[in-house]
Parts: sequence; C-alpha cells; structure tokens
Amino acid sequence: MNICRTKQQLKLAVREAQKQHLTIGFVPTMGYLHEGHASLLREARADNDIVVLSIFVNPMQFGPNEDLDRYPRDEERDIALAASCGTDIVFLPTAEEMYPKKPLTTIKVEEVTKRLCGASRPGHFDGVGLVVSKLFHLVQPNKAYFGMKDAQQVAVIEQMVQDLDMNVEIVPCPIIREPDGLALSSRNVYLSALHRVEATSLSLSLNRLHHKFIDNANITPDESIAFVRDEILTNTTGEIDYIELLHYPSLTVVDGQVSIGESLDNQRFIVAVAVKFGTTRLIDNALFQVGEVIERV
Amino acid sequence: MNICRTKQQLKLAVREAQKQHLTIGFVPTMGYLHEGHASLLREARADNDIVVLSIFVNPMQFGPNEDLDRYPRDEERDIALAASCGTDIVFLPTAEEMYPKKPLTTIKVEEVTKRLCGASRPGHFDGVGLVVSKLFHLVQPNKAYFGMKDAQQVAVIEQMVQDLDMNVEIVPCPIIREPDGLALSSRNVYLSALHRVEATSLSLSLNRLHHKFIDNANITPDESIAFVRDEILTNTTGEIDYIELLHYPSLTVVDGQVSIGESLDNQRFIVAVAVKFGTTRLIDNALFQVGEVIERV
Repeated sequence: MNICRTKQQLKLAVREAQKQHLTIGFVPTMGYLHEGHASLLREARADNDIVVLSIFVNPMQFGPNEDLDRYPRDEERDIALAASCGTDIVFLPTAEEMYPKKPLTTIKVEEVTKRLCGASRPGHFDGVGLVVSKLFHLVQPNKAYFGMKDAQQVAVIEQMVQDLDMNVEIVPCPIIREPDGLALSSRNVYLSALHRVEATSLSLSLNRLHHKFIDNANITPDESIAFVRDEILTNTTGEIDYIELLHYPSLTVVDGQVSIGESLDNQRFIVAVAVKFGTTRLIDNALFQVGEVIERV
Repeated sequence: MNICRTKQQLKLAVREAQKQHLTIGFVPTMGYLHEGHASLLREARADNDIVVLSIFVNPMQFGPNEDLDRYPRDEERDIALAASCGTDIVFLPTAEEMYPKKPLTTIKVEEVTKRLCGASRPGHFDGVGLVVSKLFHLVQPNKAYFGMKDAQQVAVIEQMVQDLDMNVEIVPCPIIREPDGLALSSRNVYLSALHRVEATSLSLSLNRLHHKFIDNANITPDESIAFVRDEILTNTTGEIDYIELLHYPSLTVVDGQVSIGESLDNQRFIVAVAVKFGTTRLIDNALFQVGEVIERV
C-alpha cells in the first residue's frame, strides 16, 4: 500500500495509474475509520482497478465552536483497516500540505445547503465543497464513494459535480449501523454510556415512522415530524437540533399539512434528524419513495 | 478538425486523446477570433500534441446591462482561423448545452477580484470562474493559454487553479496589438472611426508612462495614474472607468504617495486602464518589474 503524505507523491501515483489506463475509485474520509468507511472501500475495491483513500480532518469544514481539536484520530489503525480492505493508495496530508496558503477561492452550493446541517453549521458545506473539489482534482477518480449518513453532503457534492461538469461518478452507499440501529460515526466514541443507549432512539424513531407510513400514507409531514420529535424527547435527554422532512435530493421544503401520499406521489423524500447528546451532535436519516406504499430506499 | 457541439462529443474526443497519452493544450475563447487568439492557438500548437479551442459566449460573465446580446459572432470565419492555426478540436456549445439547468454552484475568488474589472463588473469573475472550471473539467488540458490583455482574468484563474489544486498549467501570453498600438479585442469592431483613432491613447499613454519611469523611478503611483489620466482626457472623448496601479498578480493596493522605485523594489506591478468610448468599453494594461530601472515585462 502506497502511503502518500504530499500532493506531489499522490500526483505521481495517480499519473502512474493513468499511464496504465487503470480506473480509480476514491473514498474521501476524515479518518478514525469504522465499518461504514470499510463498506465504501470494499465497494470501491469491487468496482475499480485502483482504490485511493484520503484521510484528512479538514479544518475548513468545522465551525469555530465545533470539535476540530478533539476530532478522534488513529492513523495506525486506519492504515491497517485500509490495507485489510484492499486499498492501494492512502493520501494522508497535513493541513499545511492541503492549504499552504489561505485559499481565496470559495465554492458555494445554493439551495441544497439551505436547511439541515447547512443551516445548523454555517460554512460547513463551503468547506466540504472546497476540500472535495481539491481532492477530486488531485486524485482524478472515475468514481467516488460517499455514505448516505451524510445525505445532504451527497446531495451537495452531486450538485457541485453536475454544475462544474466534474468528470467523476458519485456513488452513494447505504448507512452502516450497529446491531441496535445506531448509525456508525467516528463521533460515537464521544458518547457516555447513557447517551450511547439513548442514541438508538434516532434510528428507532425513523423505523417507527416508517411503520406509521405503512399503516397510513395519509399522514402529513408535520405529523411525521411531531411523531419523531415525541419519540426522541420521550426516550432521550438529547437536545434536538433539527427534525425535517424534505424533498430529496433537492432538499427543498414539503408542504407540512398535505398528506405525504398525496403531495409526494412518485417522489423521494428524506426525514433527517440531528440531536445533541452533551457536546456530541449525531445525525441520522431515512430516505423514502412514495408509491402504492411509502417504501424506505 | 473535430467540431464538437455537445459535451458528450468533446468528452469522447478527450478520452481518445488520453488513451493515446497525448498532451492537450487548451484555448478558451468567446469567439470572433483575432490575431490575439491566433497567437494563443499557435503557442498551444507548439507545446502540445492536441490543441482544443472552445468558443462560447458565456452569459454568466455578462452583467444585466452589458453587451451579451450584441457580442460579435462569426462561426464560419472562426472555424477557418482555428483550422489555419492547427487546431484539432473546436468545442462550440450552446448556452443550453453548457447550462442545461440553472447552476446552484458559485465559485468566488476573493481579493484579486476586488478592483479593476472585478469592481466595475460585479459578478463578472464569478461567471468566468464557473465557466473556466467547467471547461477545464471537460477538456482536461495539460496547459491552458490566456492573453494578458485580461491580466486580472489570468490572476483570478491562476489563483483558482492553485486553491483548487486543478491539474493544469496556466500559460499567460503577451498582448497582441494593432500596428498603432491598440490591443486586439473582439469589441474593437464596435468602435466608430473617431473612437478607433482615439482608442490608441490607451496603449500610447502606457508607453509614455514607461518612458517617465525610465526618466524618473522616483515617480509615485498617484503621479503615474494622474499622468495616464491626463493623457487620456486630453487626447480622447472617452469616459474613464478606471486607471489603477496595483501589485501583480495579487492586485492589491500600492501606497500612492511613496516612490515606485522605493516601495516596489524587486516587485512586479500593473498599470491597468478601462475607458468607455460610447457604449464600447476597452481595457489595456502594462506590467512592470522594478529593478535598477523599471522594466516593462
């Protein structure tokens, strides 16, 4: 496995792959890898000749009061996991390597960033857009793999790729969960024992909402949101940041008072939640397709 | 010569070139080609295996009161000129092909866009950044050629390429001029006979300023600007949009009252002018390097 710490090393490795006409699958991460990341690497491994993993805790996507400084890191374990998934190249730059000077260029994606984490974390998706754009230019992947836990991130990146005619296929991959339903996240290590138990309420409430949809497609978005809110407030001590039901992938607002079965027929929508447990903010979501029944996708 | 009118045709042509490991030189233009564009094509021809020319009058870089609708076009002549310069591929998309949907992504380059045309034409460089970024992703050039008449454009694109780690070398090329000094521009065709004569004042005043520098390196930026302003006001009926003396390529402000020889030692600076003749706005500039004497570069 080729460990590249500089852009120059990475570019050489990419050029070598291109010389041999090898396809490149790319998994950008912030490290502290878990089974969710592993699933992306395996998907990339199955689809491409060369698998590139990047591990970079991107300061530009953290707000001033967020957890940049305490974001968990374990390079040695990450490298072992990457190798076990058949990764060919790991790009492990420092912040100085990625940003030798303060960048003067900003990339903003409008509309899809208006709500959810875009509203809760101002500037977050500008940082994501910038670093993903840089990484795409450095790695030049044929395909790039992203987990659907960050469903808004997937929507933002797909929009950016389309608008900028970037030559890469975005492959969204399913959320990987603990046996009790908690969506895998590097931030789960922050949770106290109590919060760890309570945190299952996010996925459980989304599951229960799905059952409500099956029972009654005439439920409205407002009723759906109220249901999830009740579930989380009843079962946890967490502080709700947002619970929203939106069109996907446009992430635009849905009329709250018209039944889902009626107003969203043949469309996809997302129910997304963000809850703070102490200082740890967790997110989860479920994607649905409205047809004869409301199916989870 | 391969004329591509769709992104798909262009991508196929680019993929074919890459398969054969051919280097790609790219000249993005808005068409109505003149000897300035031809010089870029010849430079690209000399340096690369494949030369790609794009002709696209990009609506996104025109302001609401600018000359988008009357921007001159002559596709047939452009294609003949391109062929005569050894162009391999011409990309000739419609606005609908380039922007099938309203883009939600914006690219902004701060600081270098603050002054000159960035100040006079709000949003202009956002449009330039967006379209150049799209074109770079479609053409995937090794080198891209830009004329220094649009010196600020070169600075903006170089900054964007650096910040986004774009895998392309920007090659700035000298301004090409009419025998009487007028910088070539597709917009020169708009000029009345009187304005055409007066318009030589832009390059003449920059030449005369250079002679003043040779005579006296203790001249200040404020005195230099006043000199050019006087020249243009005396010799033309044009309306001055701006005359500025700035660091290059940062395009940041220079202390107006300290002598150039002293405050800019070993540095490069630009004197840039924009003048409106009737409804036609012309720009010109000169780049200088401060050493033992102030040399034009």
